[in-house]
Formats: sequence, C-alpha cells, structure tokens
Amino acid sequence: MTELSYINRPEVHAEVTEVFYRYETALVTNDVETLDALFWSSDHTIRLGASENLFGQDEILAFRKARPGVGLARSLLRVVVTTFGDDCATTNAIFTRAGWPASRTGRQSQTLIKLPEVGWQIVSAHVSIVDLE
Amino acid sequence: MTELSYINRPEVHAEVTEVFYRYETALVTNDVETLDALFWSSDHTIRLGASENLFGQDEILAFRKARPGVGLARSLLRVVVTTFGDDCATTNAIFTRAGWPASRTGRQSQTLIKLPEVGWQIVSAHVSIVDLE
Repeated sequence: MTELSYINRPEVHAEVTEVFYRYETALVTNDVETLDALFWSSDHTIRLGASENLFGQDEILAFRKARPGVGLARSLLRVVVTTFGDDCATTNAIFTRAGWPASRTGRQSQTLIKLPEVGWQIVSAHVSIVDLE
Repeated sequence: MTELSYINRPEVHAEVTEVFYRYETALVTNDVETLDALFWSSDHTIRLGASENLFGQDEILAFRKARPGVGLARSLLRVVVTTFGDDCATTNAIFTRAGWPASRTGRQSQTLIKLPEVGWQIVSAHVSIVDLE
C-alpha cells in the first residue's frame, strides 16, 4: 500500500473539502440555490437519497423544490475526502441526528468531478440511514 | 446541457461496464478473490454496506471473510455507468431480491478510478436497502 503521488494532493484536497462543507451548510439551511449549483447540471447526475432514487437533474430539482425545509440539522461524525489527480474526488460522511438511537447511522457518499469552466461538481450522490448490526 | 466529449467515451464506458458485471458475478457467487481484487488495496478505500461502515482495505477484507455466502442472489433493475475522461467513473445500480415487497429498493453506487499499472479499481462504494415512500 504505497502512497501514490496523485492521491490527496494538498491543494486539490483543500478545494474539495471546501466544496464539501459549502454543501453541508447549504443542506442544513435548505439553501436550495447552492445545492442546485453544486450538483452537476446533467441528465447523467444521480442522487440516491434516504428514501428516493433520482436520475438526472430534472428529478433532483423537482425533489428539492418539494422538500420541507425543516428537520435537516445533523452532526457529522466522520468525514473522509479523497482526491485522485486534479479533477476527481470522493467524499464520505457519517452523520447522526438528534434523537437517533446509537445504532443508527447516516451515510453520505459523493463523487465530484472538476469540470472544465464549471469547477467541482457533484456528479453522483448516495445517502442512506441504516441501523447497524 | 450540452454533452461533453469526455463523458462516456465509448471505449472507456465499455471498460467500466465490463468491470461492473465482473463485480456483479463475483458478488452473487461470493467469489471473494475477485471482489478483493476489484477493490482498491488502500487505507483510503471505503465501503458503506447495507448494514456496515467499512473504512480501509483491512476492514473490508475482514468483513468479506466473515460474510455468509448464501442469500446473495439479486436482480438488477437499472444500471447506469458514467465515465469522465479516461480514468474516472461512477456506477449506480438498482436491484431487488426474491421476496422483497415492491416498495423495497436496493441501491449500489461505486466510484472507480483507473490506477496506473493496476487498472480500474473500486475506490468507494455505498450500498443501501430502503423502502421508498
């Protein structure tokens, strides 16, 4: 397991980490405009949410519009940002919410690509809430 | 939403699709050797499973070793492979299992990177089974 030079280049890692927390703030404040801007504007974008499977920007935008802006607060327990070269990254976060039993875990995974002219965009996301064994 | 030339280049898309189905076959036949070979051998690799959060190759290998090799069969309902340039890709699959109610959905998301010398590797994966609203 040698560490490869294109993994987690400091400047790239810093960029993606900034995007991660910008998204997090937008999420818990239901800042739909920022959330929309951070998701890739494409039919290829996929968001598998806690209780919905959304394929393409249109489905994602419709979901956000209809989403109630309450009960979104959460605490991050673990955040791992990993970057590959200069234009590809993953983020994985473990979160909890007030009132959850200790066994319950929220998980958010995103793949980000630095698109020419647009910058870092979330191209695929998966969120799930499960009770661990 | 203009289609960009680095999205889904046919030869890249074909490579990743082949890896996706190689993984699928290995999964349902519990071919642990192939599963291990397709996951990136790294402390950075993350696999958020249906009921476990695994950080790093060691945790992933230990989980697979302990996993019972029965009840793994599943049917793929939808598979989307998206590639970015020559070395980054996402796969998202919706699956079901015999006996599941119609509301239940299995979701598998993977990020793959084509690593120099090693080839395509799953660097991050998230699997969840939820009942849709």
